[in-house]
Amino acid sequence: MPDLLPCVESLRLVDHHCHGVVRRDLDRNEFESMLTEADAPPAGVTLFDSQIGFAVRRWCAPVLDLPAHTRAEDYLARRADLGADEVNRRFLQAAGASALCLDTGFGAGSVLPPAEMGALAGAKAYEIVRLEQVAEQVAVSGTGAEGFADAFRTRLDGLTTGAVGLKSIAAYRVGLALPGERPGDPEVTAAAGRWLASIEKGAPPRLADVTLQSFLVWCGVDRGLPIQFHVGYGDSDVDLHRCDPLLLTDLLRALAPTGTPVMLLHNYPYHRQAGYLAQVFPDVYVDVGLAIHNVGNRARALVAETLELAPFGKFLFSSDAFGLAELYHLGSLLFRHGLSDFLRSGLDDGAWTEHDADRIAHLVGVENAHRVYRLADR
Amino acid sequence: MPDLLPCVESLRLVDHHCHGVVRRDLDRNEFESMLTEADAPPAGVTLFDSQIGFAVRRWCAPVLDLPAHTRAEDYLARRADLGADEVNRRFLQAAGASALCLDTGFGAGSVLPPAEMGALAGAKAYEIVRLEQVAEQVAVSGTGAEGFADAFRTRLDGLTTGAVGLKSIAAYRVGLALPGERPGDPEVTAAAGRWLASIEKGAPPRLADVTLQSFLVWCGVDRGLPIQFHVGYGDSDVDLHRCDPLLLTDLLRALAPTGTPVMLLHNYPYHRQAGYLAQVFPDVYVDVGLAIHNVGNRARALVAETLELAPFGKFLFSSDAFGLAELYHLGSLLFRHGLSDFLRSGLDDGAWTEHDADRIAHLVGVENAHRVYRLADR
Amino acid sequence: MPDLLPCVESLRLVDHHCHGVVRRDLDRNEFESMLTEADAPPAGVTLFDSQIGFAVRRWCAPVLDLPAHTRAEDYLARRADLGADEVNRRFLQAAGASALCLDTGFGAGSVLPPAEMGALAGAKAYEIVRLEQVAEQVAVSGTGAEGFADAFRTRLDGLTTGAVGLKSIAAYRVGLALPGERPGDPEVTAAAGRWLASIEKGAPPRLADVTLQSFLVWCGVDRGLPIQFHVGYGDSDVDLHRCDPLLLTDLLRALAPTGTPVMLLHNYPYHRQAGYLAQVFPDVYVDVGLAIHNVGNRARALVAETLELAPFGKFLFSSDAFGLAELYHLGSLLFRHGLSDFLRSGLDDGAWTEHDADRIAHLVGVENAHRVYRLADR
Repeated sequence: MPDLLPCVESLRLVDHHCHGVVRRDLDRNEFESMLTEADAPPAGVTLFDSQIGFAVRRWCAPVLDLPAHTRAEDYLARRADLGADEVNRRFLQAAGASALCLDTGFGAGSVLPPAEMGALAGAKAYEIVRLEQVAEQVAVSGTGAEGFADAFRTRLDGLTTGAVGLKSIAAYRVGLALPGERPGDPEVTAAAGRWLASIEKGAPPRLADVTLQSFLVWCGVDRGLPIQFHVGYGDSDVDLHRCDPLLLTDLLRALAPTGTPVMLLHNYPYHRQAGYLAQVFPDVYVDVGLAIHNVGNRARALVAETLELAPFGKFLFSSDAFGLAELYHLGSLLFRHGLSDFLRSGLDDGAWTEHDADRIAHLVGVENAHRVYRLADR
Repeated sequence: MPDLLPCVESLRLVDHHCHGVVRRDLDRNEFESMLTEADAPPAGVTLFDSQIGFAVRRWCAPVLDLPAHTRAEDYLARRADLGADEVNRRFLQAAGASALCLDTGFGAGSVLPPAEMGALAGAKAYEIVRLEQVAEQVAVSGTGAEGFADAFRTRLDGLTTGAVGLKSIAAYRVGLALPGERPGDPEVTAAAGRWLASIEKGAPPRLADVTLQSFLVWCGVDRGLPIQFHVGYGDSDVDLHRCDPLLLTDLLRALAPTGTPVMLLHNYPYHRQAGYLAQVFPDVYVDVGLAIHNVGNRARALVAETLELAPFGKFLFSSDAFGLAELYHLGSLLFRHGLSDFLRSGLDDGAWTEHDADRIAHLVGVENAHRVYRLADR
Repeated sequence: MPDLLPCVESLRLVDHHCHGVVRRDLDRNEFESMLTEADAPPAGVTLFDSQIGFAVRRWCAPVLDLPAHTRAEDYLARRADLGADEVNRRFLQAAGASALCLDTGFGAGSVLPPAEMGALAGAKAYEIVRLEQVAEQVAVSGTGAEGFADAFRTRLDGLTTGAVGLKSIAAYRVGLALPGERPGDPEVTAAAGRWLASIEKGAPPRLADVTLQSFLVWCGVDRGLPIQFHVGYGDSDVDLHRCDPLLLTDLLRALAPTGTPVMLLHNYPYHRQAGYLAQVFPDVYVDVGLAIHNVGNRARALVAETLELAPFGKFLFSSDAFGLAELYHLGSLLFRHGLSDFLRSGLDDGAWTEHDADRIAHLVGVENAHRVYRLADR
């Protein structure tokens, strides 16, 4: 790959959506299973033979003092020798982030909490609270249907005193075709009643209800925090065709008067659609996290396609790294390459000046997140 | 950007879908609001920091005697100094068009009419009549439901004696999943009755009815003119996921025996889907207008993707410029760059000869529109 | 185009999805109608002026001893002079395949059978049995509704003793939103009853029923063979928006425990979506056949986009050539160029080593098909 533009290489990125890394050592199966969104492939296929697998061998091996393109076996052996603490420290440092906005709603217990993540990375750590997790805690707390709405609001207020944002995983549970109106109290109570009854009958407290997930989003609006939405690419649990960001159009129109920042995460392969929404709706922002580190040397295509319509003041960096510290490093590095190639292509074409390229890099990598999440106020 | 191929630079383009420009001077807010499909962005974000904003500073500033990459403030000050008439004249001349097919159905009164547009541009001006506007005029003319169909046909005949084409904005009103059969008279009368009744009760005369909009299209077929469809990309009023051109498939099958040219406009981000339709349906044509000037130096990607399947005899140029004269210049210039890069890439690969590249350029930029709209007969 | 990497040029490809070529000579109309998925274009438009048309003049002309870029008329005259036998032999040899997996369910009678295809190509020929064709044979065989399921299973067993795979064209008949559960016997019998009754009333025996086509797929699972699905791009009979591979998600989840290889064919313009499925579902494989030869020098884009997420052990070559022997040559040659460009781009970037590039080329072009279809066992 060509060298990074200095204005991109020197960025102390804000990673506006990421997760903790696992503390313990991992065997090859565990490593491969955390490397991508895949279930275990059949005999004869390895995920090391894919864009992300090659990115690990090429970009991560040197961080562990191995030559680029080291064989997978040797890489994993060296990883085990160094131990998870040292591996985590090296990759989090290599990511070069100044701030992490950590979604604490998944894998708590098995991954490092924000304070430890920040210390390892040498970055400020902020919390993003997952709406569904709060609702599921309320559901098993003994609240009845009538009291559910208030109990949720109270718990959300309590859990978000220090948070900088919220997250909805409606995409995973009911898809993104959320309604264009705020659900009324009777609807919420009725839906809560059905859900709580199913839990009493032994169902796990897993929220998957359009009315309630819509209600959660509107409570987030009242809370006055930016709301992240999982969009597009995820694991095989997702119905990807129900996760096109355009399905959010009715909700986005309804949210527009509130001025709530809506953060569309991942978006692949609907990132052009997301870029369109970021252009036409004043408070919609986009990233291509998760996809970036999966697509390896194609990161440049994703950045360029998203920025066809998305204003540069609406595009952010996230790694969406989870579990493997390598993903922090790859997410950051491949994003830098994608952004650098995009800016360099514009410089070569005469589309913008070096001064402007510097400014865009800083907007995308740092300033947009600072402004939207009001990080300076924290 | 690389120099234009001479065969592309010298094209006197036919702009087969465009609108009038505004006559009066504009302040910064008005300028930004007409620059893209966006509602006003929040504090801290400017549309000048996006592909189209950079394209204005780079390509439009020199037309106003400013250096490329002039700051937005200086650009707007110079624009105000010169005044709207001179600005309009310069950009319309710079576009280098030989003919304009002007959609007169939107913004009439605030934008220049075809004759003035043609005079400013040094081009022949033709009219495209918007079907919904004709229907809405009929609806407020006092016709009853029984007489609606005939009144529409009569008015359409009257308004299109000099027109070269028609346009449907079903995409904006009901989406593109129009039925595969021509609606029968009783259906049309019943739908007209519902619509007229709603107007009598005070609703604005805004047509948004699948049956009636389908009826309009079939009246257009009877009229024997090419029919343009808004497809894909538009402002936040559009439900973009209902504007995939593939949703027209049933209608396209029904229209096929009539031989009516169907012109799919814009199409982004569904331009590959549109290219497919242009390949498999004999009378379907495509462009990537509106998107071209919005995506700046990515125009080449859109042209190349659309022409993966679309035959070169089915691809046309349009700017879809509206209001700002800059959009005429950018639409033309960025289309030329996209087409030139596409042709040059094929020349570099040995995919076609220079003779063929010349021929393709002329087909796409001029001949296809002449043939489909029978401009020589006018 | 740049030269092919030697590791790609030397591949003896396995074409895992293709059809017979026509034995007889063709006039220009017949040739154009078999060249693409298009119905005949109107006057003034020729399919020679499209990516695939230029690919014929550039790449096929030399195989018939003509200079590259020969005019279409001269090409067709030379083709007629040589005669279909010689033309077929030259192009099939030029394709450089070691094995062909031939779908025998379409055009039998008018195209060469597998044994002749293999002999002409100098390749081993294997058979893929089309599920719908077997069902349609059963439907006209006199079986009643009660006996339909068993009769189908028996006939399928009989017809597939030598086959290496099966094919579903549910995409063409009912779209890909097949249910996530295996249909029960009463449902199958009821659906068969409706179908057989319609045939008795004179309808052609054309299967287009979600329950029955789902039943066919599950019979294929029981048969223990890989199942190919037509996905995405096809002719104007297809409702392309019902052929997004993501619509198969429920079925893929249901099939996962069986370990049945699911082969997603064509996929364009949903090839990124198909790549996602190939990443997250262990037994899902993808190709971009049919599209590759249609898009000409854009083949590289399709390969690169598909391999953003698809593991290299899950991506295969197919030509989907039908009728015209040219399509065998173009499918092979343009795939080689696309794959070579992809691998070279990674080499230039340092994404992988030459050793790895060699290995990937062999996986994609040969090994994946050998492993999935167990060709060595035949």
